Amino acid sequence: MNSFGRIFRLNIFGESHGQAVGITIDGCPPGISLTEEDFKTDLERRKGGIQKGTTTRKEEDTPVFMSGVFNNFTTGAPLTITFPNNNIRSVDYEKQRAVPRPGHADFVASSKFNGFEDYRGGGHFSGRLTACLVAAGVVAKKVLASANTGKQIVFTAKLVEAGGEADIEKAINKAIESGDSIGGIVACKVSGIPIGWGEPFFDSAESMISHAVFSIPAIKGIEFGDGFAAARMTGSEHNDTYENAEGKMMSNHSGGISGGITNGNELEFRVVVKPTSSTPKEQKTYNKETDQVESFAVKGRHDLCIALRVPVVLEAVTAIVLTDLAMIESGRKLQS
Amino acid sequence: MNSFGRIFRLNIFGESHGQAVGITIDGCPPGISLTEEDFKTDLERRKGGIQKGTTTRKEEDTPVFMSGVFNNFTTGAPLTITFPNNNIRSVDYEKQRAVPRPGHADFVASSKFNGFEDYRGGGHFSGRLTACLVAAGVVAKKVLASANTGKQIVFTAKLVEAGGEADIEKAINKAIESGDSIGGIVACKVSGIPIGWGEPFFDSAESMISHAVFSIPAIKGIEFGDGFAAARMTGSEHNDTYENAEGKMMSNHSGGISGGITNGNELEFRVVVKPTSSTPKEQKTYNKETDQVESFAVKGRHDLCIALRVPVVLEAVTAIVLTDLAMIESGRKLQS
Amino acid sequence: MNSFGRIFRLNIFGESHGQAVGITIDGCPPGISLTEEDFKTDLERRKGGIQKGTTTRKEEDTPVFMSGVFNNFTTGAPLTITFPNNNIRSVDYEKQRAVPRPGHADFVASSKFNGFEDYRGGGHFSGRLTACLVAAGVVAKKVLASANTGKQIVFTAKLVEAGGEADIEKAINKAIESGDSIGGIVACKVSGIPIGWGEPFFDSAESMISHAVFSIPAIKGIEFGDGFAAARMTGSEHNDTYENAEGKMMSNHSGGISGGITNGNELEFRVVVKPTSSTPKEQKTYNKETDQVESFAVKGRHDLCIALRVPVVLEAVTAIVLTDLAMIESGRKLQS
Amino acid sequence: MNSFGRIFRLNIFGESHGQAVGITIDGCPPGISLTEEDFKTDLERRKGGIQKGTTTRKEEDTPVFMSGVFNNFTTGAPLTITFPNNNIRSVDYEKQRAVPRPGHADFVASSKFNGFEDYRGGGHFSGRLTACLVAAGVVAKKVLASANTGKQIVFTAKLVEAGGEADIEKAINKAIESGDSIGGIVACKVSGIPIGWGEPFFDSAESMISHAVFSIPAIKGIEFGDGFAAARMTGSEHNDTYENAEGKMMSNHSGGISGGITNGNELEFRVVVKPTSSTPKEQKTYNKETDQVESFAVKGRHDLCIALRVPVVLEAVTAIVLTDLAMIESGRKLQS
Repeated sequence: MNSFGRIFRLNIFGESHGQAVGITIDGCPPGISLTEEDFKTDLERRKGGIQKGTTTRKEEDTPVFMSGVFNNFTTGAPLTITFPNNNIRSVDYEKQRAVPRPGHADFVASSKFNGFEDYRGGGHFSGRLTACLVAAGVVAKKVLASANTGKQIVFTAKLVEAGGEADIEKAINKAIESGDSIGGIVACKVSGIPIGWGEPFFDSAESMISHAVFSIPAIKGIEFGDGFAAARMTGSEHNDTYENAEGKMMSNHSGGISGGITNGNELEFRVVVKPTSSTPKEQKTYNKETDQVESFAVKGRHDLCIALRVPVVLEAVTAIVLTDLAMIESGRKLQS
Repeated sequence: MNSFGRIFRLNIFGESHGQAVGITIDGCPPGISLTEEDFKTDLERRKGGIQKGTTTRKEEDTPVFMSGVFNNFTTGAPLTITFPNNNIRSVDYEKQRAVPRPGHADFVASSKFNGFEDYRGGGHFSGRLTACLVAAGVVAKKVLASANTGKQIVFTAKLVEAGGEADIEKAINKAIESGDSIGGIVACKVSGIPIGWGEPFFDSAESMISHAVFSIPAIKGIEFGDGFAAARMTGSEHNDTYENAEGKMMSNHSGGISGGITNGNELEFRVVVKPTSSTPKEQKTYNKETDQVESFAVKGRHDLCIALRVPVVLEAVTAIVLTDLAMIESGRKLQS
Repeated sequence: MNSFGRIFRLNIFGESHGQAVGITIDGCPPGISLTEEDFKTDLERRKGGIQKGTTTRKEEDTPVFMSGVFNNFTTGAPLTITFPNNNIRSVDYEKQRAVPRPGHADFVASSKFNGFEDYRGGGHFSGRLTACLVAAGVVAKKVLASANTGKQIVFTAKLVEAGGEADIEKAINKAIESGDSIGGIVACKVSGIPIGWGEPFFDSAESMISHAVFSIPAIKGIEFGDGFAAARMTGSEHNDTYENAEGKMMSNHSGGISGGITNGNELEFRVVVKPTSSTPKEQKTYNKETDQVESFAVKGRHDLCIALRVPVVLEAVTAIVLTDLAMIESGRKLQS
Repeated sequence: MNSFGRIFRLNIFGESHGQAVGITIDGCPPGISLTEEDFKTDLERRKGGIQKGTTTRKEEDTPVFMSGVFNNFTTGAPLTITFPNNNIRSVDYEKQRAVPRPGHADFVASSKFNGFEDYRGGGHFSGRLTACLVAAGVVAKKVLASANTGKQIVFTAKLVEAGGEADIEKAINKAIESGDSIGGIVACKVSGIPIGWGEPFFDSAESMISHAVFSIPAIKGIEFGDGFAAARMTGSEHNDTYENAEGKMMSNHSGGISGGITNGNELEFRVVVKPTSSTPKEQKTYNKETDQVESFAVKGRHDLCIALRVPVVLEAVTAIVLTDLAMIESGRKLQS
């Protein structure tokens, strides 16, 4: 449920308005150097803060090592990182409860958890938990870098389209003008992955990556290589031709995965991020107290384009999955 | 790796040209009536055989119950179903080995398994293993039907586009004429799912479904609800408005999942099936023996549009995932 | 590795001299009332403090709810409980490193984790982590009590033998006099368990309980029912005779488990706790710095009979296992 | 439930009087040579047949490779081995149903599975399934032997006590004379294990071994090293003194495991096997049809001392556990 992975294994916890959000990483090798400093770049990227359109709420995203780090190195014991929730705004959450916000998990959470869920600010469903994913991604990237996998593995995710436009800045400005949130498409590329990661039958690289990717709030689709465009292609167009004994290919329609296993080419996939559910635009929703559908406006500061924050999270979950797949492959080879 | 699920748990095995392919289902409740007859419709649908464009190879898809069924009812012990491989054609597989087929797993499998893989006809990567998924899907559908989940759960998947055309027959005819395989898009809808299936944080309904879906060979993308179209929508367009206390919504842009949890609306998702890798068209590939890129033609009978076979497999994996999510939800409630 | 359970799932973390020890419980149902107060009795029992022979170190065993509790009820989201390490004594741990303490994990931990382990006070191997088990046990007991399992489930573990004596106080006094630590035997009984918990083939009640029990430091053996005495019995002596349609038995040689499944009789098992490794008695060990076997004396305050602290921990892990087995059984029945 | 292991993962299925019993091993490395011949010795040992006191039923214990073996080598895909049930005696099982056999799982199985269980000859609870464990053990031993773990790993389990006697033959003769089944104690030793296998916190070597061991029918207790005798020892007696930098110890009271992790010394543990439940002696049990406690005699051929068959099964599950622990350790080190 709240865990993921077989050897490099995550366990996430926390609510946006509770004491903290956090993540425990089990199976982390000992001897990986780790300081607060290592997390700064990726946590900063997650804020998407330079660009207009992201929330102005200032989260204190300073990781606290609760366990598993000693003298600035991982110990091999479970590594728990928390992000205390310091900057919590007082909001009349009780009132909000009566009106399940469209696009949010409010209604289903209340139904599933019989009304006992922490409903403040999304609770356990909050996007704030992606800080934990980013932190785990930082660790995963360092683990992969420390391993002798042949080449350096480089992650590059970026927002390639927002509100239907390739010009992101322009799109954000239009969203601000129209006062409505927008969605986007994020592309992720990873180079340097060796051949052979991913497991038939159920733990294909696509299966594992998509499993992790759909944990990121607001993601509604994923495609590998040519993806949905492949529906209009012929076999001779889509197949990649091998050109040497190392498996080099003349094209990369497959997105770096053949038969669920990394094929040595660049891993390429794209995800769609739905428009931020909390839009400034007036909407309608059912009010439990009045038993009527009523007009409704989201209060507070919210990202107009949550997709701006997604690239680093996408890199993170991809790094997490690849680390685990690499460990499974290494484990089965049994090179102790 | 070759297992999936937490309580309703699958374990798949077998190769296309070995003794059999098979699946073991653990966690199946006792008392589900089960005979060969129950599998006929879905196994027949998997053949896609009526339509032109599918292989003429006649597979004997008769399920053999090896364990877990007694007096035509499931016993609650592991249920193993095998499909013996009776109709195996003699092919010069040794020769084929030298030329990894474009689009197939040949090359990566040989690299990952150090040349020990069963390379005959795709081996463990063969589409033949989807017969096992369909069989498990039949069981899952019966388990869901037997449970008191409120409404009847109805699965409907179909091929909605092939070779870029909505007219499937026309598309197949064009593919036959041009002698090249084509891809397609399959849409899956499931009605009758109660609110509350799917688990934050990592086992969202989307995560689990996509994990299982990407186990199906040739799938390269998945989108829920409006999917990739959401990238060009605004929040006020995409959000679904609640209209009553039961969570009924005025629209279904979310595809029946909110915050990773089923919201009581129809589950809707679409997948893209790449063009069959084994196209009749001449291609090029690297020949390990001659150390050159050479022309290459796939021999044997193959589906021109493998997408024709996918709908029933998609229903199957969806039923499997929903059964497991239902059992997890039921388990946590602890109504023993 | 540091996780256990299928639905009611634990994840433990922390070191004795780090920031905190803690545990995350996934799969906890919502709506269980939970306050600090609920933990007092069992945490107090764990201290074993009234009796002579236990350490005088005063641990602040106050549970901190980091997530999963809201308005004094569980939310259904992951429940993280930590015990901050406030009362840490300054010890010259660097010096201690050179001499691996006999009976402790020092040497193997250093070897396994390449010297990066947190070696202060046992680190992640410390008995302090059993506070987390006890906390999870409190939650498990409350979950079982809240479920409609038929009868009330009552846990009773106690130290039945120490240093070879049934008179525990006398045994402790003798240990104090002789200045050497002693072992003991703890018996655990659980009444009120329904028939049918435990899963063939690998997750028998005995398998799951013993798995959890051997997580408790210092446990070196476990026996169910007549246990090792059964080796000297005949079948007609050991078999329990059924006397009615409800499965009541005339004896309980089986310890409440038949074929790995609870049979409705009282669950009975006994464990052996080895003598506390940290004995005041002078011992010998290898000194890495001098490369010689040298005399060695453990410093600091330690329990002479760690077995005194085990009963409540044993109850805890048993409650944890039973909760998970109950949830698996409930889940497979699929009563949603 | 019916699966065990993280990377080297087993899935067991089958009933004694169904079509077959079998096991699927996932995570087996490719390139392990494997023929029927490899299984002969251990399968023969399992029969315990030379010695009087074991059943005269002749089981055809010839393994059938259904998948995962190609050209006499493992492929890396799931390895499924079955043992068809050819030698099934006709017995009036319907009649037997009314009288749950003392010591057997009959009653609990019927209760747990609502009467749908395959009750013929113990069904899924039959000792026949241990043939599958032995087969998996053979594979595990070969995997360990193929790995570069430093020393050769040697497994030696034997029956050290039966019916309270060290003279096994004498004990069996006495059992035959008295017409009553007897129990026994089996000791298992494994040399050559490197330091560092086993995981804190929950997957200690003791936890994993005991979990697997209690899957073997009739086992009711396990103790490591000095085991229950440690309850009467002092710390200075029980602690093992290190004598060099490689972790060599002057004694082996710990049984080769410190802090849950293998310490380089010989692994030593003992299990108790209860007397065979099917004793020739007349017993009493409840008759469901007559609603009375009645005299009852087991029919058919049964082992008087099932413990005779346990040693090779014990070796098997130990090899299975060690293989998985080795793979986890290798995986975390990430030497790809």
